[in-house]
Amino acid sequence: MSPRALVFDAYGTLFDVHSVVQRCESFWPGEGARLSQQWRAKQLEWTWQRSLMRRYAPFSRITRDALEYACAALHLALDEERAGRLMQDYKALAPYPDVRSALGELRAPARSLAILTNGSPDMIEPLVASSRLEFDAVLSVDEVKVFKPAPEVYELAVKRLRAEPAEIGFVSSNCWDALGAKSFGFRVWWINRGGAPLDALGFEPDGILDGLGQLPAALAQ
Amino acid sequence: MSPRALVFDAYGTLFDVHSVVQRCESFWPGEGARLSQQWRAKQLEWTWQRSLMRRYAPFSRITRDALEYACAALHLALDEERAGRLMQDYKALAPYPDVRSALGELRAPARSLAILTNGSPDMIEPLVASSRLEFDAVLSVDEVKVFKPAPEVYELAVKRLRAEPAEIGFVSSNCWDALGAKSFGFRVWWINRGGAPLDALGFEPDGILDGLGQLPAALAQ
Repeated sequence: MSPRALVFDAYGTLFDVHSVVQRCESFWPGEGARLSQQWRAKQLEWTWQRSLMRRYAPFSRITRDALEYACAALHLALDEERAGRLMQDYKALAPYPDVRSALGELRAPARSLAILTNGSPDMIEPLVASSRLEFDAVLSVDEVKVFKPAPEVYELAVKRLRAEPAEIGFVSSNCWDALGAKSFGFRVWWINRGGAPLDALGFEPDGILDGLGQLPAALAQ
Repeated sequence: MSPRALVFDAYGTLFDVHSVVQRCESFWPGEGARLSQQWRAKQLEWTWQRSLMRRYAPFSRITRDALEYACAALHLALDEERAGRLMQDYKALAPYPDVRSALGELRAPARSLAILTNGSPDMIEPLVASSRLEFDAVLSVDEVKVFKPAPEVYELAVKRLRAEPAEIGFVSSNCWDALGAKSFGFRVWWINRGGAPLDALGFEPDGILDGLGQLPAALAQ
């Protein structure tokens, strides 16, 4: 059955964070990759830990805090200007090269296209606007004050898109996000650009793709 | 006020996982540190993700799954014998050198000493037995089927030790665990052996120590 709604993760799935890595490298030559990795790792850890502690904070705050942490851990000097520039970059990430044409192919009269993201509105709204990609809905976990992969997050898509879980196709490059959505009841495709092993969370995706460009063909099967 | 109960995290706080790193290095020369790091990272990620998904699995299962993941990610061959040996090592970790004497000093007639761990009984019970350290209670998250830093975990100590949160002193080398306990209401000491920055989770520990040997003096203040 063709999904009535297709729901996409944003960071790393539709939008390439590589420009942020490049900016880190330009600020701290030789440290860009290591800094970006630590920044991303803490950013995610804190979404999970704050969710479990029931101490939600917006993703913009967590992202900024994680940048400060990563710089401190690596003994890199961070000033307001650099921090501001990096946070600004997050609002203007480029979509992956295959995203625009894939979304064009996937658009259909009886199908909604939506984003479901950890990103808070202050981050995701300027990003979607700058990309000029069009979606029927941009849903943020900020509405439910808990992060992925909590079921309340995927439930938000069910409510807002007025579709049953089994009618929703979910697409993420984060394996744990895809499996959280699968555990909730969506049909899921994991975009595994880096050839990573499958996370052992008790579920498997319905399909594993190398990039978003393969999704239209996978859906047609 | 002197705490009526002192509750300790196990892995990395009382028990040194370095012997597991050494075993990894002996099995895969040159890869021990990288493998141990990836193994530990996935082990923790999955505790948080499974908790949020409400798909609990015992820590022994997650630890074994994470070992397989880390070996696959690094293209290292893992057989049953090596996996079994590494899981066995986890049941016989050495306490840090300062643990035995610190616990001796901390023991007092009106004070319980306890462990509160992510470890499932099949892992933590043989470990405590092999160490010959003595505790009034060994509490596992397995009873509540959710991992740290969920408040249900710290609540377990309150119930089982029959003490109010403010009467409990909690000690962990994992900053997020210490801050989860602080968010719940314990007095907490973070054992920061590696000189890491503080996690930005909205709380601060009551004290930061270089090792467990400093705890008796910190409590006496």
